[in-house]
Amino acid sequence: MMKLYLNPASPFARKVRISALELALAERIELIEVSLSPVQPHHGLRSHNPLGKIPALLTEANEALYDSPVICEYLDALAGGDRLWPAAGAARWRALRRQALADGLAEAAILMRYELVIRPEALRWSEWLDDQRLKVRTALDALEAEPLDGPFDIGAISIVCALEYLEFRFPEERWREGRPQLAAWHERLRRRPSVASTRPA
Amino acid sequence: MMKLYLNPASPFARKVRISALELALAERIELIEVSLSPVQPHHGLRSHNPLGKIPALLTEANEALYDSPVICEYLDALAGGDRLWPAAGAARWRALRRQALADGLAEAAILMRYELVIRPEALRWSEWLDDQRLKVRTALDALEAEPLDGPFDIGAISIVCALEYLEFRFPEERWREGRPQLAAWHERLRRRPSVASTRPA
Repeated sequence: MMKLYLNPASPFARKVRISALELALAERIELIEVSLSPVQPHHGLRSHNPLGKIPALLTEANEALYDSPVICEYLDALAGGDRLWPAAGAARWRALRRQALADGLAEAAILMRYELVIRPEALRWSEWLDDQRLKVRTALDALEAEPLDGPFDIGAISIVCALEYLEFRFPEERWREGRPQLAAWHERLRRRPSVASTRPA
Repeated sequence: MMKLYLNPASPFARKVRISALELALAERIELIEVSLSPVQPHHGLRSHNPLGKIPALLTEANEALYDSPVICEYLDALAGGDRLWPAAGAARWRALRRQALADGLAEAAILMRYELVIRPEALRWSEWLDDQRLKVRTALDALEAEPLDGPFDIGAISIVCALEYLEFRFPEERWREGRPQLAAWHERLRRRPSVASTRPA
């Protein structure tokens, strides 16, 4: 069995879970839930990932892999390759750029949450928050402008996880407003079993 | 010509520059220097990378690529592939995990710098700083424990860039102390032309 260290709220861990379901590998992965905060490191996890971040995967050979792009590509290779990760050419660079865009959107949303929820109120810095929010909104606008139809690859998986993380933590952002193409694309994907079954509650 | 948006101090942009030199692609890349701060977005850059982050590459077909792992893999493929990015198997996962470890170390050091230099002094939070410093030190200890000899691949490139960024911004960290294997490995690489010619001044 592989072991996946995760938290159900993490958009990056969710990329791995959706990939595992799409690749029919989920039954080979034991899920180990950890609670993390930026100021409460988890020592068990840190022995596998020195950065103390989730997701981290222990392979069947007991080797640690991280971060989410590495784990997702590893699972794709384990399933034969060229499934969720286009093997080469323009499709690969498009999928990987989209993954970077979506992961960056999620990362900015997580930094917003650290600033607004974890950091003591007296130490919050509105300009930092504004810059993260600008990253989120500019990324959303870029996704709206991009024709997203095509295979459900690692780019699409990353976008779904980022959008739903934003909705989970910042519903007041109302990301759909003014972004009808992106909202329609998401609507077509939201009931897909791998997506619906991993949605944070 | 390709165009690379970068800042000479960025460890992530430096990974791209070292890769380009190693792959003999540097002459096909125009370097466009931008100054970024977490609270001063750069609008020209943002039109190519909605996240407003460096490095970002415009390909010869004028398509934008980011972040640094995507750009570095693209350049490797442009040079024929399997040069700095092992094509498959254990060597690939090892190189990619090392890249993630080194990038995570650099990212934690950058967050330390934001907290210590950019954020107004009255708003600094020592526990956050301590957690980033713990990530840096645990990552360094993990690198010390790992046999790093082997080809100069994307894992090694990322480690060199992270170590030298730490030295550039936080010389008082004295990362070599208590880490003789890592220090010796770095000493063997530091005069390599691609490394020496891209070192931040």
